[in-house]
Amino acid sequence: MTTRSREDVVQAAGRLFALRGFHGTSMRDLGEELGLLGSSLYSHVDSKEQLLVEVVQRGADLFQNLADRISASDASAADKVAAIVRGHVGIITSHQDLSATFLNEARFLPAPERNAIVDMRDRYEATVRAIVAEAMADGPTRNQDPALVTIMILSVLNALTRWYRPDGRRSAEEIAEAMVQFVLGGLR
Amino acid sequence: MTTRSREDVVQAAGRLFALRGFHGTSMRDLGEELGLLGSSLYSHVDSKEQLLVEVVQRGADLFQNLADRISASDASAADKVAAIVRGHVGIITSHQDLSATFLNEARFLPAPERNAIVDMRDRYEATVRAIVAEAMADGPTRNQDPALVTIMILSVLNALTRWYRPDGRRSAEEIAEAMVQFVLGGLR
Repeated sequence: MTTRSREDVVQAAGRLFALRGFHGTSMRDLGEELGLLGSSLYSHVDSKEQLLVEVVQRGADLFQNLADRISASDASAADKVAAIVRGHVGIITSHQDLSATFLNEARFLPAPERNAIVDMRDRYEATVRAIVAEAMADGPTRNQDPALVTIMILSVLNALTRWYRPDGRRSAEEIAEAMVQFVLGGLR
Repeated sequence: MTTRSREDVVQAAGRLFALRGFHGTSMRDLGEELGLLGSSLYSHVDSKEQLLVEVVQRGADLFQNLADRISASDASAADKVAAIVRGHVGIITSHQDLSATFLNEARFLPAPERNAIVDMRDRYEATVRAIVAEAMADGPTRNQDPALVTIMILSVLNALTRWYRPDGRRSAEEIAEAMVQFVLGGLR
């Protein structure tokens, strides 16, 4: 019987969920991706939902760690905004499957896990919002609503899960710097 | 036998595709939304794919009309950027189901229709990119790549399909003005 490590299974699930969506991924797709059939597949995978929980949780942890790191820093507010942008771009470009699944597919989680993940996303967004509010208070700005500005910043960052290609015209670093300029300009 | 107009059927499909995604919407869901069962449902709906084609085409037409209108205007480049932002926000906030399905579910279209829609999206994006390039050439800017700036602007705008609520804290007009300020600031 062919065997696969739990790591292989979770990574394959992340790839498929990111590519086709949770609902667009069947157990058969997962079996083909892993080269596992029938009972061999079912000995590795109890349910698609359980795999979604694991993939989303890994994605959530990456963003939580970033928020904790930036919150603990004593840089200026504008530098913290830049650090969030660079860190967020770094997570998506180096863990595209995990972050795409966390950001786009978490709504399909079973209810208890969904609530836990929504809480994690809310905490991350609250951290970004606090930093954005601080940066907006530091200088003249035409925008008066840090919550709305935070949504716009996260929209720019999260859309990267949909269009980033490792072999694209711009490197991850170039994209991050363009986003830092755009976001810091947008704050003013 | 209960009957529904084609308009009712397309609108119900748009609501469900926007809410649950194309793959998350079953013929049974559609039947329940319309109050139609069995053969009665199948006399109204030949296939889910055909309904997706109709919903996406309607969404695409709205954006195409906006692009044509702005291109024909002789306003300044910055004013044209502002007009695109206001128009795009206007479409999403008044036709949320059609625009969410066009923007997020078109990848699930059958191949010939998908190619036609990808062409329409590319033309819309090219129109926005030309206006953004013109606006960036009109003044000092730290961002050097109009194509990348255009992606960021469309990311801010398109994310609205996911978070806009008609009964939310900010009106569609307030959101549009905040986005105009953010985008014009980001260009510089």
